[in-house]
Amino acid sequence: MREVLADAAFQLFLERGFEQTTVDDIVARAGVGRRSFFRYFPSKEDAVFPDHEGCLADMAAFLETSDDPDPVSRVCDAARLVLRMYAAKPEYSVQRYRLTREVPGLRTYELSVVRRYERKLAGYLRACWAGTPDSELRAEVTAAAVVAAHNNALRSWLRSGGEGDAEAAVAHALGMVRHTWGAAPDGSGAEGADDEVIVMVTSKRAPLWRVVQQVESALGAD
Amino acid sequence: MREVLADAAFQLFLERGFEQTTVDDIVARAGVGRRSFFRYFPSKEDAVFPDHEGCLADMAAFLETSDDPDPVSRVCDAARLVLRMYAAKPEYSVQRYRLTREVPGLRTYELSVVRRYERKLAGYLRACWAGTPDSELRAEVTAAAVVAAHNNALRSWLRSGGEGDAEAAVAHALGMVRHTWGAAPDGSGAEGADDEVIVMVTSKRAPLWRVVQQVESALGAD
Repeated sequence: MREVLADAAFQLFLERGFEQTTVDDIVARAGVGRRSFFRYFPSKEDAVFPDHEGCLADMAAFLETSDDPDPVSRVCDAARLVLRMYAAKPEYSVQRYRLTREVPGLRTYELSVVRRYERKLAGYLRACWAGTPDSELRAEVTAAAVVAAHNNALRSWLRSGGEGDAEAAVAHALGMVRHTWGAAPDGSGAEGADDEVIVMVTSKRAPLWRVVQQVESALGAD
Repeated sequence: MREVLADAAFQLFLERGFEQTTVDDIVARAGVGRRSFFRYFPSKEDAVFPDHEGCLADMAAFLETSDDPDPVSRVCDAARLVLRMYAAKPEYSVQRYRLTREVPGLRTYELSVVRRYERKLAGYLRACWAGTPDSELRAEVTAAAVVAAHNNALRSWLRSGGEGDAEAAVAHALGMVRHTWGAAPDGSGAEGADDEVIVMVTSKRAPLWRVVQQVESALGAD
């Protein structure tokens, strides 16, 4: 029923425009009563994004069960669940992206959804890093960077009309964040690793993000 | 007139609540006609945040004239204009923060304001870095990190009721971003610096953000 309503709503939004479509139009198209709509969706906006609630729940479950030793890798992988949701229905995702660009109310709604993902990831990192210096600050900055990197790649894919390998683009974008903010990629976590040293030589002119790439490379990650 | 209307609106929002106050109430309190309100503010929400439009313009002007050689330092300093706007009226800022927490429409409005700052900073960085690899991705991730760091410190200050040194807290938070994503702090920019080398020895177990701090320290910044 939920899916029938969301499909009817989306078809009408494409045909007539979002503002011009009423809830009465939607329930008439879906062949159900008006109260059914509000049982599933608090507002018309919610019917445009019916899958985020489920994706947020999947993300929480993923974070609880992930066994990656690095919390930053975990939140990067959690963010990729969002990409997979979009990539599973490319045509629908691209049409919705175009609709959202045209309707200010949908753009604002989308911002609040993005903020919910960001808060979930930040809360998770804060708990992982509890008791370390600046844990809340690092958690919020890292979560914002993860979400910005993910959305940069997702938006490029949507703008292109769903062309190209979205998974690879998101992996590349998140890799930049993981390599900057994540733990050393030796796979051993904080305990039990040999306390090896590396010696790195770099130009003093290099910007720090490039130095980080060099450090990362010296540490022997992929 | 604009300020008179914003003051009248804010007093009424505190006295009666945001939802319970109409535009008619506001213009009656300010002693002007209804059309005057909409000449200055597109909506009730805009009257709660009357200074952001000016701050966005100040930010653009600041970025155009800054002579700091590092674009990341420039956007960090630009972000601090927002903090200064809040810190200039501590009591008003704290009251508004509390009001915003209670009214979902104001929280959504605030998200769209934050997004406007983020887009401005990202657009500036993208132009600075045009032609370099992943310039758009780096610009968006860096802008998101700057805004998240700034807002983390600003929110802590607002939550505390305006206690403590907000400028110092924001400087500390932005320092973390600048030291991670900014150019090497030798003050010379990309051209003309001696191509000196540093040698750094670090534990392979160290998380990369800590390695960055060490690099930064080795590079001799404050």
